[in-house]
Amino acid sequence: MSRIANKSFRAKIVDAETAASFIHHGDTIGMSGFTGSGYPKAVPGALAARIEAGHAAGDPFKVRVWSGASTGPELDGALAKADGIEFRMPYNSDPIARQKINAGEMDYFDMHLSQVAPMAWEGFLGPLDTAVIEISGITPEGDLIPSSSVGNNKTWLDIADKVILEVNAWQTPMLDGMHDIYYGTALPPNRVPIPLLKSDDRIGQPHFRVDPDKVVAVVETEAPDRNAPFSPPDATAEAIAGHILEFLKWEARRAGLPPSLLPLQSGVGNVPNAVMAGLIAAPFEQMTAFTEVIQDGMLDMIESGTLRMASATAFSLSPDRAAFFNDNAERYRDKLILRPQDISNNPELVRRLGCIAMNGLIEADIYGNVNSTHIMGSKIQNGIGGSGDFARNGYLSIFMTPSTAKGGAISAIVPQVSHVDHISQDVQVIVTEQGLADLRGLPPRKRADLIVENCAHPAYRPMLQDYRARAASASFGRHAPSIPGEALSWHQRFMDTGDMKA
Amino acid sequence: MSRIANKSFRAKIVDAETAASFIHHGDTIGMSGFTGSGYPKAVPGALAARIEAGHAAGDPFKVRVWSGASTGPELDGALAKADGIEFRMPYNSDPIARQKINAGEMDYFDMHLSQVAPMAWEGFLGPLDTAVIEISGITPEGDLIPSSSVGNNKTWLDIADKVILEVNAWQTPMLDGMHDIYYGTALPPNRVPIPLLKSDDRIGQPHFRVDPDKVVAVVETEAPDRNAPFSPPDATAEAIAGHILEFLKWEARRAGLPPSLLPLQSGVGNVPNAVMAGLIAAPFEQMTAFTEVIQDGMLDMIESGTLRMASATAFSLSPDRAAFFNDNAERYRDKLILRPQDISNNPELVRRLGCIAMNGLIEADIYGNVNSTHIMGSKIQNGIGGSGDFARNGYLSIFMTPSTAKGGAISAIVPQVSHVDHISQDVQVIVTEQGLADLRGLPPRKRADLIVENCAHPAYRPMLQDYRARAASASFGRHAPSIPGEALSWHQRFMDTGDMKA
Repeated sequence: MSRIANKSFRAKIVDAETAASFIHHGDTIGMSGFTGSGYPKAVPGALAARIEAGHAAGDPFKVRVWSGASTGPELDGALAKADGIEFRMPYNSDPIARQKINAGEMDYFDMHLSQVAPMAWEGFLGPLDTAVIEISGITPEGDLIPSSSVGNNKTWLDIADKVILEVNAWQTPMLDGMHDIYYGTALPPNRVPIPLLKSDDRIGQPHFRVDPDKVVAVVETEAPDRNAPFSPPDATAEAIAGHILEFLKWEARRAGLPPSLLPLQSGVGNVPNAVMAGLIAAPFEQMTAFTEVIQDGMLDMIESGTLRMASATAFSLSPDRAAFFNDNAERYRDKLILRPQDISNNPELVRRLGCIAMNGLIEADIYGNVNSTHIMGSKIQNGIGGSGDFARNGYLSIFMTPSTAKGGAISAIVPQVSHVDHISQDVQVIVTEQGLADLRGLPPRKRADLIVENCAHPAYRPMLQDYRARAASASFGRHAPSIPGEALSWHQRFMDTGDMKA
Repeated sequence: MSRIANKSFRAKIVDAETAASFIHHGDTIGMSGFTGSGYPKAVPGALAARIEAGHAAGDPFKVRVWSGASTGPELDGALAKADGIEFRMPYNSDPIARQKINAGEMDYFDMHLSQVAPMAWEGFLGPLDTAVIEISGITPEGDLIPSSSVGNNKTWLDIADKVILEVNAWQTPMLDGMHDIYYGTALPPNRVPIPLLKSDDRIGQPHFRVDPDKVVAVVETEAPDRNAPFSPPDATAEAIAGHILEFLKWEARRAGLPPSLLPLQSGVGNVPNAVMAGLIAAPFEQMTAFTEVIQDGMLDMIESGTLRMASATAFSLSPDRAAFFNDNAERYRDKLILRPQDISNNPELVRRLGCIAMNGLIEADIYGNVNSTHIMGSKIQNGIGGSGDFARNGYLSIFMTPSTAKGGAISAIVPQVSHVDHISQDVQVIVTEQGLADLRGLPPRKRADLIVENCAHPAYRPMLQDYRARAASASFGRHAPSIPGEALSWHQRFMDTGDMKA
């Protein structure tokens, strides 16, 4: 049975190549997609082929690509491989695109994910020519049933001149009804409070609206989302998770938090999954998540009954779990809500709900500043994503990492971070497998005491102590002692010798 | 006529020395005060005398001092001079306290001003022993009429074990009715939307409540607020203001903003005053301000009719203007609203209203990261204050500075900032007297093109170009090219030679 229940949309069904022919050199494309879920699977590949053909004929052909966050290899990978992306925002984790960005061949602007839709709407980012949006169906009335991510799709559909739809029959029809698309946003001076008080409040409607006159093509697909499988938690991840769970139990007692704690936000990866596994056994109940993505661990928490429901903007499930979810979506229908990312990550809501934010980092410095994005200060890994939305506005902002990387050649705790994504004021807790530093209310030198003592790897602790001792006398001021000429020398040493150790 | 219209409070009138005797070594004191307005004038001096007497007798005597923001010399100056402050938060601009902080003799924790009240209430900062609050009167019912700043007073009164009140007869009685004290805040999971839609909405009540049983002393004073006079705008300030005004006019046309533009937030100083003088002549009308402090330029804008009203948490008027305001308060009564700082700076409200945020900086780097606080990375000037609340959440975040300091020995544009308060994502526009860089939507290398070309001083531009050229090949990644071993060398050179120039 067709997913396209509306006749006039059915009349617009074309193949991916025909759809891609509506896209031209210099265009800006708003793609669907958020962490490997709900991105268009067919048109980007056809566009990449068009671009390659153009380049072979000596014609310039590049486009500007906007999305929700990361997508899949069929989108970022294919277009980057074709040298077809002039500019990319707001987030990327594709390895080919990353390589081009760090070769200086592709422009990339990483943004707070909550701000993409409003800034696009405000015209800060220029006009949007075409939206290419994966959906899971079209209603008889011509409304669009969202797919496995919402991202910025509502905004792309609203502001693009042209719309191309991909209707993906691989997505379970049980997605219909899981989404909550809020149409109450406005630009200043007409913004009003967002009427969401709890993670499970519904404030919108299940479907996107679209002006049918803007829809130039509808493409039918049947292709899986592609998220990378996660490695299972190792001893390091288990140790980090253990410290966090002890801390959360202590904090819940100290602050008199309810048994449901406060809504969880969590990045993805094996450490967050270990935290969630631990939460199943922890003395919390009827918890909720108000977060960006629903990952494997959250489904387990729902299965166990610990997590009552999760609100997010996208699924981010490993391939096995995505297949499992598709086969068993019925039992999650009333426990999951997918929202636009300007709602899932909204500072107003994150602060109101008091999220407990748990995110990874690349490096932290002795004063608690966090670098989440730039290796050695210049090579971008993914992007800031929603970490700033949650870290600044949550009840608690926890950053976690193994204390070393590259077999010990890189310390995650350094004298000064080579790039800052999260200032110390937005970092309440830092955790490594070595231990946890609760930085709340502490001045810089006391933060440094805790971070060096509790979080640094023993191989680097004496080097940090030595730096601190010398900075105490060589510094311009002693509020947060530093030696500018040496503060980033660990990074330079790694670049020069392959090891941060002297 | 007494400002204390309630009998039971009149019975508690004592002198400052007696009031100060309620404060002991190790106590945490929540003081009123925000930018030299509304801070207690008598008890801190009496406490400083007690501390000095204790020290002379060989007894330890230090206290932890919380406030709204900066205060006056009678508070921070007197207590710092007495070596009486163990810990200070969330903001300081007193020169004696600053010297102690940067000598490593006093702990200081600078915070986002919107977060002080909720984090104190959440217990993140430890217990509060005593509140010492300046007010302008007490009603017959025993409610407190706020003074020339609101700051965190509501929260200090709510959470302190003991309360000492200073009733300052110097403050005009016409302040009564200007305040809007919102009692609808709650901690998660019970927070609700803040029902403020426009700068001039009133959502609270004019007076503070206090549990009379907690009030241990009432002290009568008659002493002026003390803000430093501002230097008049010089040619540099006029040039910066000129670039900003041109940009705002262009942006208003581009974005179709209303004639009232959007609510202004502005730091204090001669550059903001020059901007406000320029706004009087600009084609905007019926403007509002939703900001931290009401400074001289805003009174001029109100006089001219350009500014319809201003919402803030404190006055920050030069001595002449404060006297003028006190004599003419009647005509401003319906045009000014003072709110708690967790409302004046609230991210939910700043984002809803779409403030145009204009703040100063110490240095910016070629990628648009901003250091507002730490000279040479280690010596704190004042603190982040509310700049982060407004910069991240406003419609537009503008940072402005002269392009050099110390007679040209310091460049405000550097290869890499020595400390980060505002990440590039929170910095849309940088302005110096040289020009303006509109960074919206630009990837790092294009941001660098604009900042170096438009904002750097010609004496430093070739040095920045040279760094960029070498970084392009020496960098680990070319997304945001840098040379870690050299990135902070300008700061080290200034420390070593007194000049950033090679």
